[in-house]
Amino acid sequence: MGAKTTAGNFFEDFSLGQVINHATPRTLTTGDAALYGALYGCRFAVQSSETFAKALGYEAAPLDDLLVFHVVFGKTVPDISLNAVANLGYADCRFLKPAFPGDTLTATSRVIGLRENSNRKTGVVYVRSTGRNQHGGTVLEYVRWVMVRKRDEAAPAPESEVPQLPDKVEPSALGGAVPALNPAAYDDELAGSSARWGDYEVGERIDHVDGMTIEEAEHQMATRLYQNTARVHFNQHTEGAGRFGRRLVYGGHIISLARALSFNGLANAFHIAAINGGRHVAPAFAGDTIYAWSEILEKAELAGRDDVGALRVRTIGLKDRNAADFPLMADENTPEEGVILDLDYWVVLPK
Amino acid sequence: MGAKTTAGNFFEDFSLGQVINHATPRTLTTGDAALYGALYGCRFAVQSSETFAKALGYEAAPLDDLLVFHVVFGKTVPDISLNAVANLGYADCRFLKPAFPGDTLTATSRVIGLRENSNRKTGVVYVRSTGRNQHGGTVLEYVRWVMVRKRDEAAPAPESEVPQLPDKVEPSALGGAVPALNPAAYDDELAGSSARWGDYEVGERIDHVDGMTIEEAEHQMATRLYQNTARVHFNQHTEGAGRFGRRLVYGGHIISLARALSFNGLANAFHIAAINGGRHVAPAFAGDTIYAWSEILEKAELAGRDDVGALRVRTIGLKDRNAADFPLMADENTPEEGVILDLDYWVVLPK
Amino acid sequence: MGAKTTAGNFFEDFSLGQVINHATPRTLTTGDAALYGALYGCRFAVQSSETFAKALGYEAAPLDDLLVFHVVFGKTVPDISLNAVANLGYADCRFLKPAFPGDTLTATSRVIGLRENSNRKTGVVYVRSTGRNQHGGTVLEYVRWVMVRKRDEAAPAPESEVPQLPDKVEPSALGGAVPALNPAAYDDELAGSSARWGDYEVGERIDHVDGMTIEEAEHQMATRLYQNTARVHFNQHTEGAGRFGRRLVYGGHIISLARALSFNGLANAFHIAAINGGRHVAPAFAGDTIYAWSEILEKAELAGRDDVGALRVRTIGLKDRNAADFPLMADENTPEEGVILDLDYWVVLPK
Repeated sequence: MGAKTTAGNFFEDFSLGQVINHATPRTLTTGDAALYGALYGCRFAVQSSETFAKALGYEAAPLDDLLVFHVVFGKTVPDISLNAVANLGYADCRFLKPAFPGDTLTATSRVIGLRENSNRKTGVVYVRSTGRNQHGGTVLEYVRWVMVRKRDEAAPAPESEVPQLPDKVEPSALGGAVPALNPAAYDDELAGSSARWGDYEVGERIDHVDGMTIEEAEHQMATRLYQNTARVHFNQHTEGAGRFGRRLVYGGHIISLARALSFNGLANAFHIAAINGGRHVAPAFAGDTIYAWSEILEKAELAGRDDVGALRVRTIGLKDRNAADFPLMADENTPEEGVILDLDYWVVLPK
Repeated sequence: MGAKTTAGNFFEDFSLGQVINHATPRTLTTGDAALYGALYGCRFAVQSSETFAKALGYEAAPLDDLLVFHVVFGKTVPDISLNAVANLGYADCRFLKPAFPGDTLTATSRVIGLRENSNRKTGVVYVRSTGRNQHGGTVLEYVRWVMVRKRDEAAPAPESEVPQLPDKVEPSALGGAVPALNPAAYDDELAGSSARWGDYEVGERIDHVDGMTIEEAEHQMATRLYQNTARVHFNQHTEGAGRFGRRLVYGGHIISLARALSFNGLANAFHIAAINGGRHVAPAFAGDTIYAWSEILEKAELAGRDDVGALRVRTIGLKDRNAADFPLMADENTPEEGVILDLDYWVVLPK
Repeated sequence: MGAKTTAGNFFEDFSLGQVINHATPRTLTTGDAALYGALYGCRFAVQSSETFAKALGYEAAPLDDLLVFHVVFGKTVPDISLNAVANLGYADCRFLKPAFPGDTLTATSRVIGLRENSNRKTGVVYVRSTGRNQHGGTVLEYVRWVMVRKRDEAAPAPESEVPQLPDKVEPSALGGAVPALNPAAYDDELAGSSARWGDYEVGERIDHVDGMTIEEAEHQMATRLYQNTARVHFNQHTEGAGRFGRRLVYGGHIISLARALSFNGLANAFHIAAINGGRHVAPAFAGDTIYAWSEILEKAELAGRDDVGALRVRTIGLKDRNAADFPLMADENTPEEGVILDLDYWVVLPK
């Protein structure tokens, strides 16, 4: 007999090169897709319609890329970030294969960096997490780093190793999750916009106009759908006495809301190919109304593809403030009031 | 480069005979059916049970007729009613074919009437909207008219054209969405009632007894499930400063609640064949408890069918008031306090 | 013409030996499974993953046992407990076959006991309810007794008949819902724990650590998913003026929350084989945060099985109080503050 419950890993439990196979494998279904749709109101035609997806060359309507991300991320939480003080960042996140209803996802993380903080109380853990389907194919891969508490401050510090991470995913490293498609078969009317890859310009800014108010039941259902066990999202009894006095909304919920809102302006950006980096500038809570705006940072051809091209997009999420004036920084170091998300990612559009 | 976001169509953007193919095609699944069930608590046996439906001659358990309606309606919102001042009415709504999990619905609208208002600020747009499945079959058809703002008050008025619309769908025009069924194979016990078509009388009034309280998360999830983008349902930040100080519940959510409540009294009315007309008498908000009662307006044989018959039903939706005294009109022009919905429709029951 | 709505059965409507076939048959789907997951955050690998379940010998990932219980229970409500004053108890509940997405469940109850109370106003009704799949196979069976109002106090009392009920299901009576499995094929890492049947000891107590706050929208959606029509869960208009001033959370929602929380400590207890008895010690409401702890009451070999064994577990549900000090009884007769559920059941784990 021994402890059956886990308190999660502390900083000294991680070692460089360590590989963690996360529980629980998860078969995603059209049920998950329906729920994801009801939580965010997505309207991208490829994910919404079997016939639209198949006409383009998909074997079926793929699941939303962010649903896949959240499910893989959720699996890593019990092992990686249960004792996290802070989620510090993401990098090199690539969506390599589409996931379809019926696919079963598992997640594995490899510790690729460790650095104890000078206060000896915490350390930074870098992991490269991989989501695989039932055939062993890599669906998703990303690096994440978190600040984790030590169980015992006296535990010896590991040798410091800080991995070099790319500021962005190079276009040449973007995956082949989108099948070769016939741009003529892509129906702009049904997709909701005639603006294709060629119609966007670097520097262009887009106000996504609409706002969406978050309810406790919604973000809790979303976060449980992802089997994410981070306590701060579910427990008013403890959080009521905590730092914010209330449950914190999972950052990924904000990303998904911003992505759904971005349909109004980026309707043909049907696939997220990579996330270059992201920052949750401020917390969000039930009752907050989320808005978003985007800037086109970069345009890229994809090697060997004349059917689709990539846009590097920076999407700013806001709360209780609309995006008409494109709020960002109040001064060099201070985000403007209401800015809560700063996400840098690549999307794919038909040419 | 140009505007990528749409502000919706204004009155002067519509022209008589114009056909609009709406985005986004949508494959409906058992996931959508499960969510629809959880949102309303429907208990009609045909939609709830594969075995019950197949015993009657359906190829599978059909999706709830109102789920189909809401999904088709939702598609029309971005093009038709984003700038609507008011939803004025519905007519001639017919459910022509059943929709099954796996079917992909698209929606098209034809402008069949236009009339500028004398104030020159708004006009009425009449559209006939059609929902089709992936085989091109018409699943649903209805006329709707909305009052839409003009972008520019100086824009010239179109020639007035007001379509003639039927007060009700004639029984002879009711669709064949119900397969020929063997009334003996229809199990009253499993269906929940022994009252069949022959047991209802014109003028009969039925108190549906139960009440259901609406939560913000519920109506938001419902309305997003339908990919309905009307802002008033989702944005507390703007609506808090608006006319009601809060988010407005999508009228279709009330219709679906009333329909689900009507099971208690109309358990065998498993199919909605047509909606003759409907009026949202007063708005509904989260926290309201919805009740309903119905009156049998008419009974009709269906040509060539001795298995099923139709009832024309008027269902009155109420809020925060039960239906025991069948509230309706306080005087000739004023609905009674609490009346929020007045729906006139045809249902089909086994004989 | 006659009453089309039902006020439910009163005590004098029941007779010994009576068999009631409940409405509405219900096909369960991956949509229901997704929603169930989002409502509780279950992480048991067998139900979560098609590949994990099939590797063990299941034909598919089975539905959560409690989802099956709630659906069967929900069907009995309109006939058995609409006029119940109190749910008095459960006994002899056995899960005999797994249910899979696509299965259609029906429910039947047989009246096995009746006893009028001395006040002549109420009586106790004992029913054995059976849930069957579309092949007629018994998926679930349980006895439940409820105190039901009389319609007419002057109605004659039936002859008293109180069935003998087992304090617990004997291990020899536990069903064969788990296929013969290869313990070596059971992947502890993916399942989330290395603690198998042999690692638990009688008397061992487990704090399940986490807490989950209930929202109105969540318990309403759950209870409607089960097609449970008990009014107290949905109607704030009447309940606001009632005993508690608010909607009561369905007791089964608490059981499912406690079960999901118990993953942290009982991760390999993937199947509930029986419920020996259960008591809702105190009501729960939206806003309550649920915690749980468990005690291992008994260990049992299963006849002819060396792959799996059974644990008899008592799980205590708490509200707004964590389980670190294993709260139970304040004195012999009084539960400690915060105790809301006392559930005695058998789970199956790999050896």
